[in-house]
Amino acid sequence: MSAIPAFTVPFEVRDYECDLQGIVNNAVYQQYLEHARHLYLKQRGFSFAELTKAGIYLVVVRAEIDYKSPLRSGEAFVVSSRLARLTPVRFAFQQEIHCTVPRRLVLTATITCAAMSQAGKPIIPKGLDALFDGPAS
Amino acid sequence: MSAIPAFTVPFEVRDYECDLQGIVNNAVYQQYLEHARHLYLKQRGFSFAELTKAGIYLVVVRAEIDYKSPLRSGEAFVVSSRLARLTPVRFAFQQEIHCTVPRRLVLTATITCAAMSQAGKPIIPKGLDALFDGPAS
Amino acid sequence: MSAIPAFTVPFEVRDYECDLQGIVNNAVYQQYLEHARHLYLKQRGFSFAELTKAGIYLVVVRAEIDYKSPLRSGEAFVVSSRLARLTPVRFAFQQEIHCTVPRRLVLTATITCAAMSQAGKPIIPKGLDALFDGPAS
Amino acid sequence: MSAIPAFTVPFEVRDYECDLQGIVNNAVYQQYLEHARHLYLKQRGFSFAELTKAGIYLVVVRAEIDYKSPLRSGEAFVVSSRLARLTPVRFAFQQEIHCTVPRRLVLTATITCAAMSQAGKPIIPKGLDALFDGPAS
Repeated sequence: MSAIPAFTVPFEVRDYECDLQGIVNNAVYQQYLEHARHLYLKQRGFSFAELTKAGIYLVVVRAEIDYKSPLRSGEAFVVSSRLARLTPVRFAFQQEIHCTVPRRLVLTATITCAAMSQAGKPIIPKGLDALFDGPAS
Repeated sequence: MSAIPAFTVPFEVRDYECDLQGIVNNAVYQQYLEHARHLYLKQRGFSFAELTKAGIYLVVVRAEIDYKSPLRSGEAFVVSSRLARLTPVRFAFQQEIHCTVPRRLVLTATITCAAMSQAGKPIIPKGLDALFDGPAS
Repeated sequence: MSAIPAFTVPFEVRDYECDLQGIVNNAVYQQYLEHARHLYLKQRGFSFAELTKAGIYLVVVRAEIDYKSPLRSGEAFVVSSRLARLTPVRFAFQQEIHCTVPRRLVLTATITCAAMSQAGKPIIPKGLDALFDGPAS
Repeated sequence: MSAIPAFTVPFEVRDYECDLQGIVNNAVYQQYLEHARHLYLKQRGFSFAELTKAGIYLVVVRAEIDYKSPLRSGEAFVVSSRLARLTPVRFAFQQEIHCTVPRRLVLTATITCAAMSQAGKPIIPKGLDALFDGPAS
């Protein structure tokens, strides 16, 4: 792991995100993770929406998610994200979700991404180096 | 792989499932996969909603998804699901999504599930054996 | 009401569409209604996604929805849609959702739409007359 | 209008909430409105999730939404809510969404709600009077 602190985003569970089990629906965690990744990109100077308009498509090529403990209505939580470069055109986010009170691990995820043209060809967006803390951990 | 054919469910992309890239949002594929799993359970006599009411919580403990090719507005596709038992209380769905026209692989996924009480204790629901085609492939 | 039969689309409630009350979440009904409207447009030769690419934005300007009876996990239902022109650039969908078994009215809605350029100026898409059954009822 | 200030909740548009038009999908605004209503209830001592567990179902019986101007990726906005009692068992939220920068009205909504038992019978939850600022405006 890098010694650089992870980028963190605070959230709160909204009731419409819970399903009939009374817990956050599995798919919704992917939305949380995506939002945290896009904010990560933003604070490094990359807007997902602007990249898309410019014809650069950041896409997820693989998601591995380990669900440890569910989130419930109204709970506050934090998504932390680190980014590592795997190859010149592939990079992986290491992400974790922790519930705030009581403090507990909700999930861990590795989300592998690539940048592509609309036609699906690999692209290296200009200035991409600014995204990374260091080599893959 | 089992010789028994996979359980398949036909779908069609709805426009609200597409995001600003014009393709189905990553999290939405997990919704498709979940719906296909719940229909798999149903045709074997298990209702997810009824199990939940009875205090048996089927939960996803790990998701591995490989995204191969995105789905777009209006495309028809099929989700196929197979189920294998990993341990007495864990089981894994092997799922694939194929676009219908033109025929292409959209994603493959392995979704590992467990049955738990609301308190988080492992449970083996009565008649669970009826769910499985055979041993883990 | 026009004597022309309404355009109908069959659906089935998916578990992830239900919230912690065990019924379909209010916002999800708007997704059903939207999908039915887009299929209405499609069978008249208008693709929402193609229109958007061409710079023509169909937008909802007003929604009135009366919720009569909730939908639950697994229920089959039908969305029926009629379209009437209000002014040269405004049109209104009259939509209803009926649960199939037992047959009951789930909701009625009037959704007023307009066509706009990306800059927000009213547009009359070519061939728009093909959309309508007749005058506003 | 009551002289009492409205209850406000700050939000930020998440990319997954935008559809292929590049703007927040119509149904998502209802999710924002619902979340703001549930926080309104919470600060008055009512938890939507707790009420549901106790067999008291707060349901929307009518929604009227006027869409004035769409929200886009990353925009910050505020949902303001006021609540008025219409009859002993019906109450209406007056809600507005304003984008923060540039300041503009995004939508206005009137959401009429009722409290019911799971069987659909009207209920007056104990202490309900604490919810209201005053008479219907």
